[in-house]
Parts: sequence; structure tokens; C-alpha cells
Amino acid sequence: MHLDVAVAKTRKYATPESGDTVEMIERPGGGLSFVVVDGQRSGKSAKVISNIVARKALTLLAEGIRDGAAARAAHDYLYTHRSGKVSATLNIVSVDLESRTLVLSRNNHCPAIVSLNGELRIFDEPSQPVGVQRGTKPIIHELPLVPGTTVVIFTDGLTSAGERKGQPLNVPELVRELIGRQLAAADFAQTLLHEALIADDQRPADDISILVLTISALDQNDDTRWLKVSMPL
Amino acid sequence: MHLDVAVAKTRKYATPESGDTVEMIERPGGGLSFVVVDGQRSGKSAKVISNIVARKALTLLAEGIRDGAAARAAHDYLYTHRSGKVSATLNIVSVDLESRTLVLSRNNHCPAIVSLNGELRIFDEPSQPVGVQRGTKPIIHELPLVPGTTVVIFTDGLTSAGERKGQPLNVPELVRELIGRQLAAADFAQTLLHEALIADDQRPADDISILVLTISALDQNDDTRWLKVSMPL
Repeated sequence: MHLDVAVAKTRKYATPESGDTVEMIERPGGGLSFVVVDGQRSGKSAKVISNIVARKALTLLAEGIRDGAAARAAHDYLYTHRSGKVSATLNIVSVDLESRTLVLSRNNHCPAIVSLNGELRIFDEPSQPVGVQRGTKPIIHELPLVPGTTVVIFTDGLTSAGERKGQPLNVPELVRELIGRQLAAADFAQTLLHEALIADDQRPADDISILVLTISALDQNDDTRWLKVSMPL
Repeated sequence: MHLDVAVAKTRKYATPESGDTVEMIERPGGGLSFVVVDGQRSGKSAKVISNIVARKALTLLAEGIRDGAAARAAHDYLYTHRSGKVSATLNIVSVDLESRTLVLSRNNHCPAIVSLNGELRIFDEPSQPVGVQRGTKPIIHELPLVPGTTVVIFTDGLTSAGERKGQPLNVPELVRELIGRQLAAADFAQTLLHEALIADDQRPADDISILVLTISALDQNDDTRWLKVSMPL
């Protein structure tokens, strides 16, 4: 099997920096975890928030702490340090090679979308952001690590794209259409972002982060792992 | 300007996992840091070592601690916990957007290679690995963040490729040749890895990690940051 993950991240138009933070870490037991955080509001203050939430979750995951506990800790940490006054959304996506499962942890009103061999599942149970309500827990789904899987995670800049014009993007519908095209993870994320930018007239109304993960049967007979990063300076 | 970083990582032939660890983190003041660690020996025991060294450095960098202090701390941590008996090489490559510099921190006998507009600099001052000698410090070079820069960092699996046949890869010479071709970071890393695999008859004698960073003048008028990960499962 082969894993591909692509993350696209862009910022609200005319703000100096994105308030979203996306980080990746290798799991000590094997596999990878991705942490996607959207800090309340936008710009510098949002970035500070998303940075501390992501860092707390990441640091714990790096020590082998399970995803649910890392998400709870990230909540407690933000809640304690900001007296319950500041919120952030938090998604953790883990490819856990110990349990051979895909673990989706969600503290985000935006759904997580999973397709298994073309069948779409939308995980949109009510979910609280971290930081504001005592005892907040993540919604967790654990799925087998099997070929034909696509996972799409995003911050609310994607779902709110187009709202300014009263035509918000229908993300589940768009994902359903893209699944049919069997795109590579990077092309999938690129297309979603492209549609959001069109809906927002190339001036994003909010920070947008999109993570697309695919597991394919393809065995390239190649042990090489790749990490590629690209950003404007 | 545009930043591109590509990391290729493969493992010693017939070992279950690579003993190298490569991680990336966003710097809280802006920019990115990459940590490349090669744990002593290979396989599971090397992986445990490289993981704890990388995690210590990464956790500190995520808190805004300067690279030199993070490298010293990673050394002290390993030295203390393994009583000075276990070594690892450690490279930290940072794109620091606060100081607008490229910071190369090296605890590795392998050189760091930098090209600025085709002029090659090989940083190969004597350097100690972390973990074994009390008070070990990194060798640090700070360079301006300017277009036309290429940085190549690697673990010793690259320099030792071909040694089995008495024909070790001449990495600086190879890099010099590739610089002339103006390759994208991913193609550059791919070509280096390809040459190493040829030298090792497709059976790497050691874990190999290669990081290539390029800064180009290209302004794509696009604020999107990309992260792409690909690995066999």
C-alpha cells in the first residue's frame, strides 16, 4: 500500500499571516500524525492560539500519547491558559502503524469526509472546539488502513468560501465529485482550494487549510519516503 | 522569493526500519525548521535514538528556542539518558523569517553543502555527533535568505554508498554537477538518491536521508503553502 498526504494552506486576503497551523510528526510506534488547528479570529492573535494548541498536541503525540488524550490535553491547556475565553478547532489525523488504523480525531464543526472505494461517509456529529468549554472531548473515528481510502479534512475557510456572495461552497458535494475522478492527493487538495478561491473571487474571506490523505494499493517496490514543502517567502 | 524543500529517506537494505528521523516544525516567530538525525547503528535501536534526539530538538524549536540551544539540549539529553554511550548525528536547517536568515546547525561528520548562484561552499569543519562527549556544541552557519541558494544536507548513508565496491560516491562533486542543472529541490534529491542506489546496487548499505532546500526568486503571486508526504505502508 502507499500513503499520500497533501496539505494546502492559504490565508485570508490582506492579512499578514494565516491563523491556521498544520503540523506533522512521526509517531514513535510507527506512522504519522497530522494536526490541523484554526485559531479564533484571524491574523497574528489567531496564529498564536493555533500555534500553542498544535504544539501541545504534537509534543504529546511525539511521546507516544494516544490521539484522544493529546486532543483533551490540548483543550485543557488552552482552556487553562486563556481562562476558557479563546477557542480553536483541532483535527488530528493519524496513520497508526501499530494498530494499523487511521484515527480521525475532531474538535471542529466542519465535517471530516472519508471515502472508501467511492462510498462517502461524512463525520459531522456535533463537536466542540477546544478552549472554551470545560471537559471538551474529541469525536474519534478509527478506520482500518485499507487501499481505496480518501480522507478530506479542512478548516471553515473552505466551507465559508462564497458566503460573501450568498453561494457557499458545497464541500461534501464537491468532494463526492472529485472522488469519482480518482485524483492524486495533491491534485485533490489543489482542486478544492481552486474552487474555494473562485467562490471567494481570489480573495479568501478566511484562512483555508485543506488536508487530503489517500491510501492506494499501488506498491511501487520503493522504500523511499518523501516530504516536500513549498511556500512563498 | 519561493522556498522549496524536499526530503528523501530510505532504509538500509533488509532492515525493518530506517534508523534516521527527519522532522519539520513551524517556528513560532515565522519560518520552518528541519531536524535530520541518524541514530547510531541501524534498525530499531537506531530509530529509538534518532527519535528521542529529533523530538527533543523539535520540541524546543517549537517553543521558539534558538537552534544552537536546541542542538546543545538534544546532546545533553541523549548524553544524560544514555550515559554518553550512544551517539547520533544531528543537523538542523532553519528558515528563520524573524532574522531573515538560513541557519545551518551541524553535529555530523558529513558536510553541509551550500550553493549561492552556482558558487559552492562546503561546510566540513570538524564536528562531533551528539550523545558521547560532554559539552558537545554544534557548528553553526548563518546565511542570508536570498534567491539562488541551494542547501544539501545528508546522513552518511549517502557518502558511504558504493563503499562496499570500493567506489564511494563523491557527493560534493555530484552536487556541483547537479547545481549546474538548476533542478527543482525534489528532482535534485531524487537524483542524489538515484545515484546512491546505483552505487549500492539498489541495496543501500546504510539508511540514507537527503534534504535539499532551494530559494528561488520566483514570485508565483500565490500565498499557498504546500506540504506533501508520500510513503509505502
